[in-house]
Amino acid sequence: MEASPAGVWPEAVVPHDRRRTHRNARPSRPEREADTVPEQRPLNLAALDAHWRAANYLAVGQIYLMANPLLTEPLRPEHIKPRLLGHWGTSPGLNLVHTHLNRVIKNRGLDALCIWGPGHGGPAVLANSWLEGTYSGIYPDIARDAEGMGRLFRQFSFPGGVPSHVAPETPGSIHEGGELGYSLAHAYGAALDNPDLLVTCVIGDGEAETGPLAASWHSNKFLDPVHDGAVLPVLHLNGYKIANPTVLSRLPKAELDSLLRGFGHEPAYVTGSDPQEVHRAMAHAMDQALDRIAALQHAARTGQATGRPPWPMIVLRTPKGWTGPAIVDGNPVEGTWRAHQVPLASVRENPGHLRQLEAWLRSYRPDELFDTDGRPTAQVLDCIPEGNRRLGATAHANGGLLTRALPVPPLEHFAVPVDKPGATTHEPTRVLGGLLAQIMADTAERRDFRVVGPDETASNRLSALFEVTGKAWQADTLPTDEHLAPDGRVMEILSEHSCQGWLEGYTLTGRHGLFSCYEAFVHIVDSMVNQHIKWLKTARRLPWRAPVPSLNYLLTSHVWRQDHNGFSHQDPGFVDHVLNKSPEVVRVYLPPDANTLLSVTDHVLSSRDYVNVIVAGKQPCFDWLSMDEARVHCARGAGIWEWAGTDDGSRAPDVVLACAGDVPTQEVLAAASLLRRHLPDVAVRVVNVVDMTRLLPREEHPHGMGDSEYEALFTPDKPVIFAYHGYPWLVHRLAYRRSGHAHLHVRGYKEAGTTTTPFDMVVRNDLDRYRLVMDVIDRVPGLAVRVAAVRQTMADTRTRHHAWIREHGTDLPEVADWTWTD
Amino acid sequence: MEASPAGVWPEAVVPHDRRRTHRNARPSRPEREADTVPEQRPLNLAALDAHWRAANYLAVGQIYLMANPLLTEPLRPEHIKPRLLGHWGTSPGLNLVHTHLNRVIKNRGLDALCIWGPGHGGPAVLANSWLEGTYSGIYPDIARDAEGMGRLFRQFSFPGGVPSHVAPETPGSIHEGGELGYSLAHAYGAALDNPDLLVTCVIGDGEAETGPLAASWHSNKFLDPVHDGAVLPVLHLNGYKIANPTVLSRLPKAELDSLLRGFGHEPAYVTGSDPQEVHRAMAHAMDQALDRIAALQHAARTGQATGRPPWPMIVLRTPKGWTGPAIVDGNPVEGTWRAHQVPLASVRENPGHLRQLEAWLRSYRPDELFDTDGRPTAQVLDCIPEGNRRLGATAHANGGLLTRALPVPPLEHFAVPVDKPGATTHEPTRVLGGLLAQIMADTAERRDFRVVGPDETASNRLSALFEVTGKAWQADTLPTDEHLAPDGRVMEILSEHSCQGWLEGYTLTGRHGLFSCYEAFVHIVDSMVNQHIKWLKTARRLPWRAPVPSLNYLLTSHVWRQDHNGFSHQDPGFVDHVLNKSPEVVRVYLPPDANTLLSVTDHVLSSRDYVNVIVAGKQPCFDWLSMDEARVHCARGAGIWEWAGTDDGSRAPDVVLACAGDVPTQEVLAAASLLRRHLPDVAVRVVNVVDMTRLLPREEHPHGMGDSEYEALFTPDKPVIFAYHGYPWLVHRLAYRRSGHAHLHVRGYKEAGTTTTPFDMVVRNDLDRYRLVMDVIDRVPGLAVRVAAVRQTMADTRTRHHAWIREHGTDLPEVADWTWTD
Repeated sequence: MEASPAGVWPEAVVPHDRRRTHRNARPSRPEREADTVPEQRPLNLAALDAHWRAANYLAVGQIYLMANPLLTEPLRPEHIKPRLLGHWGTSPGLNLVHTHLNRVIKNRGLDALCIWGPGHGGPAVLANSWLEGTYSGIYPDIARDAEGMGRLFRQFSFPGGVPSHVAPETPGSIHEGGELGYSLAHAYGAALDNPDLLVTCVIGDGEAETGPLAASWHSNKFLDPVHDGAVLPVLHLNGYKIANPTVLSRLPKAELDSLLRGFGHEPAYVTGSDPQEVHRAMAHAMDQALDRIAALQHAARTGQATGRPPWPMIVLRTPKGWTGPAIVDGNPVEGTWRAHQVPLASVRENPGHLRQLEAWLRSYRPDELFDTDGRPTAQVLDCIPEGNRRLGATAHANGGLLTRALPVPPLEHFAVPVDKPGATTHEPTRVLGGLLAQIMADTAERRDFRVVGPDETASNRLSALFEVTGKAWQADTLPTDEHLAPDGRVMEILSEHSCQGWLEGYTLTGRHGLFSCYEAFVHIVDSMVNQHIKWLKTARRLPWRAPVPSLNYLLTSHVWRQDHNGFSHQDPGFVDHVLNKSPEVVRVYLPPDANTLLSVTDHVLSSRDYVNVIVAGKQPCFDWLSMDEARVHCARGAGIWEWAGTDDGSRAPDVVLACAGDVPTQEVLAAASLLRRHLPDVAVRVVNVVDMTRLLPREEHPHGMGDSEYEALFTPDKPVIFAYHGYPWLVHRLAYRRSGHAHLHVRGYKEAGTTTTPFDMVVRNDLDRYRLVMDVIDRVPGLAVRVAAVRQTMADTRTRHHAWIREHGTDLPEVADWTWTD
Repeated sequence: MEASPAGVWPEAVVPHDRRRTHRNARPSRPEREADTVPEQRPLNLAALDAHWRAANYLAVGQIYLMANPLLTEPLRPEHIKPRLLGHWGTSPGLNLVHTHLNRVIKNRGLDALCIWGPGHGGPAVLANSWLEGTYSGIYPDIARDAEGMGRLFRQFSFPGGVPSHVAPETPGSIHEGGELGYSLAHAYGAALDNPDLLVTCVIGDGEAETGPLAASWHSNKFLDPVHDGAVLPVLHLNGYKIANPTVLSRLPKAELDSLLRGFGHEPAYVTGSDPQEVHRAMAHAMDQALDRIAALQHAARTGQATGRPPWPMIVLRTPKGWTGPAIVDGNPVEGTWRAHQVPLASVRENPGHLRQLEAWLRSYRPDELFDTDGRPTAQVLDCIPEGNRRLGATAHANGGLLTRALPVPPLEHFAVPVDKPGATTHEPTRVLGGLLAQIMADTAERRDFRVVGPDETASNRLSALFEVTGKAWQADTLPTDEHLAPDGRVMEILSEHSCQGWLEGYTLTGRHGLFSCYEAFVHIVDSMVNQHIKWLKTARRLPWRAPVPSLNYLLTSHVWRQDHNGFSHQDPGFVDHVLNKSPEVVRVYLPPDANTLLSVTDHVLSSRDYVNVIVAGKQPCFDWLSMDEARVHCARGAGIWEWAGTDDGSRAPDVVLACAGDVPTQEVLAAASLLRRHLPDVAVRVVNVVDMTRLLPREEHPHGMGDSEYEALFTPDKPVIFAYHGYPWLVHRLAYRRSGHAHLHVRGYKEAGTTTTPFDMVVRNDLDRYRLVMDVIDRVPGLAVRVAAVRQTMADTRTRHHAWIREHGTDLPEVADWTWTD
């Protein structure tokens, strides 16, 4: 039972074979730039230091200056911004990494992307982007000259300007720097299926304390050295968070080393505060790491090694706020938490602070770095690579440029035949599995489609996927294992955070995917999806950002079928959560059967820049619509099911039974059937809603209905009994402006507690067929008195159900065996 | 800059000093039971194995049997439950840990609690609880005899019975086993300030992949060996999740060992599948670990060692589904993922499965374990400790029994003086810091109050706390550090998950606390708070569970003051999230100033079994109410501020300006002030809402208002302009049933994007004073035409604002300098 040792990997540094290991990531191009990689150049420490100093100067300038950017005159209070915002502490470290990445990219002709975990050090990434010219390329009014530098400074965290964090507006980024924890998962997501890409990931030692980051170290057990690119983590131990030391920076070195080796890495340490020594050590560590990566990839790709290699990483231990003020007002600042944000806080008011700021800025010797027109000198620019190799210009950070439409086969190949509604049942997600498997097969060469999930792909009945691909796995295997494969494109780890982070990184770099998750536990990533939606909302407004594939959720094992797992597994609130977010980004679908699930999935997989949430069951479900009907119904998003009601169209119905979600749809149809039998003279209309946002007013969401369309479905004044999949008030929140709202009565889930059979779940929530019939009787004027006996029958059946399940452990036979027979 | 080595700790096993290290946790009791600890007894492997077999038998019985519990007759299909639910795979491992914990608790007279991370193995914990008699003590109808055994089996995951996971209904538990990731943080939370408590924490290797669990390994950097108890992690490597191998089980042993040592542990390995060998190894490992813990605590508590000791842990590597069917239908089951849930799935229908189940059950030799009346034999019971030392009976798992009321000092000592409204400003959270510091000081001996937060206590201006306690810190320190202390009771780690898990563990064991968090990032723990609310909801229904202190959130650095950090830091949706949950548990408060914040906090700190959410700013805020007024206003939860309006009470107002939240309150008062100046003949009523649940109907929430009370505040038919702190539709969702709902117009936050000054934020969201005045003009009948010029002035001011901030970077002077002068 003990695991076997890892495969044999080259222990020593192996000569660097550029041609093999740095071929271009886009194999469709006829000529590979990497074939013309220049020879390595000698280490020019002076030039590297000049670049670093220039970036530091520009970072400080952005935080403080609104005029006099080149210090052509002594600094005066009116040159200083009235509100000082931004994070200095992490900036010099980020600048160091960027400078040294520039060097190796240029030297080796790398295709590289960098994820800046401490992205609140926005000034650093902006400074580098400006230095390499990508910033001016995208934003021409911020030119690489004195005037542009002045604008660069002024716009930073200033009204009408740019955010203080790395953000969609920042060239070269796919990672917002505000909420911490997701950098490493994003890096792995970007590296997947990009075999020639180097993804460097700077991880702050604060961020390293978060759960999502802690989990994502194990991503290297899922990275295929043959088909995926490399991730080079740079753990930046600058020692402090906002107000505290960081845990990792205060471990004995041996303990930290043990931890990082336990994560499957071979760490190299770059430690110091003397710039020259650190430059030398960093250049050496980067070269060693990249040589090692090249050797590992070469060994894997030539079949000389299999299994999981020990990947290199760098631990960069430099002072927080390095090169900033050492002491301010008598307190140590450089190398402490006090350097986190704005080290000199009262520059306008305090002449001492003003002088200290000027000395700090001049310590970088700007006159050596910029000519009198503000242009960086040749020495500063020496390390910067050309064209799209620049970190701010890589297409991987503007992934829509690389996106190819996903080949979705004809749905008819997978659809279930439906001659009449409700005559058969299928497990919708199992049907969907067939479609996903075909897409997976059709992208076997392209490798731009992945399915992720927390160990639930089979449980969620998508196992057809395993007929065409494996589950990514680089750790050890045993003979009894099934479907594990180093190059598999289904990814399963029991971490919703890692799944979400991988898929974000994968889609933001232009590829396609689906996250299949238990409905209740997708709340684990609430905060991550918040940030992704914010990213997409902002990115959509930037004309230079190409649309990227949507992030698609399939939420299954949903609230209504948790008779197995109970209360902890019941939560339909993710829909509520995303519907609080920007309407131009969020879409929510509740397909009621297998064919509608196919249609909706087809739609979301071809969409761009959305977060699509599909909620669909995995348990057997009646087939209501043929594939053609499903397409039409899903395109409308909501519609009348004439065949299910008794509303003949000649007059308004007496009542509307509305439904959204598979289980509510079944109960509504069963209620309609009971009404047809017991109350044949009541005209019932059945409305099914697939696209929840259709209920919103048109001015609130692009899919919203106008009032006349809404009233044509729901009537302006008749009682509407709405059986909804989730918390009932969501429907009220969407529809409260409608004229008929006072007549809307919603049944849904209300924190029921433990239940133990499927029908018991709906009864406990008053969403069952009998309760719905009682609702109709109670709300259609005049009915209650006339049909009191029918109402009593319904109530009695519910009582009988209660006793029956306690005795037999199963649902009432008339419920368990019910079929739609009308 | 390299960290210094850890303090000197005893390397060898030090003799066990029971009196010193296992004194009772409740020092107020005159006699300490621990003083009468029995001598250790010789290892009785046969008895341990008998106990383990009995527990395994009972676990299998719960999953399968609804009759014939003792197998007094051959098994027939009708003895089998119609639906087979439950998780066998983890159960034998949990049973093993429980058996061996019993032994050491009895031998050493330990005060112990166990957190069962793989709590979906509910059958195991229920089996042990029944064996030790605690189950029958709480649920007398499930007696420790044949009839009780039959009921124990039948009730498991059966209608009207108990959940399949460890749950509030389970004696001895504070940890639901459904959503994975929180066990270790719960364990540390329970151990804090319980110096004589041993908290064993079983961590599944699936759970170990989650982010929250991965982060919580570092909790040992915050555990004080002097004042806190010990946590003994038992990492159970049974190798598989639902359908996949686990990452940790497939690491080479050296890599796993390196990882665990990197987490600060000294692991002992118990590996095998032969029960006798595993029993012997487990007993040895437990003894070694407990001796080590005793030695470490002794060294710390006698001053012989300082700093962070290397804590022991156990790695238990046994087969998944151990002792279950080896092969089913030709497929290997024991030792694979197929053993996860119900290994034999068709027992009623398949005679072969039925025979296999009977053989499996009889393999435990039940006739040796239970007498003919179904009572466990003396050998089975031999290892079980007495009374409240039994794991199912410990008061720590029913923490309300141990809760002492928190000494909250008179609020007047901290209140800000308010002679007239709006004449002064204070930072509300800084004022609150004074109160919290006093409580911290007053609990210095008792040590039953903690404040947790992700590195934001100072940022959130609660730093008065550091005058009376430190920040818990067991890692290395440097001379420049401030406020770090091994025994500090403020806990800061950059992991919201760890903060939440610690506080859940702390409050569920009966102590008090507050979680201070940036409002946007509290979504990180959405799913954890879901589970905690579900726990409390269920626990409240169980008469034997004593009420525990509420889980209290202080959400600050809120959405309206993220001009510094931008879009990623804007999210007021946590309130929406918790308000979807059980109304008997959730409470939401938005105090508008410093004194109301004091009053609300006073209230929540003395409450029980709630999740209280307080949203309050840290920026300077006008002081509106004196302490007396604040108390009255908070007790009512919502009220008319007569002094702010022009509504003289003689007739209905023309318009109601309502507000909830500090910034909306300020804008509403500024709007009221503008209306008084520009439209003195419009009767304006100002209503402030502190307790959001008051807006709900009375039948939907215990704090809900009746309709007449609601109408007395808001009128039945006048326009209500409601300026709300969060997403505006939340107010509609709460108030949609009110008769005046059609006249309700809500302004709130709507995903604004990056902003850069405080006033710009409210303008971008149409929540500013000028927009509110325009709303009044637009909605009070007849006003729009009459006062078009005033409306134009308002619109022009907003336009002027836009230009002004882009020029100057600050808000309009008339806004920045505004004060309430009426």
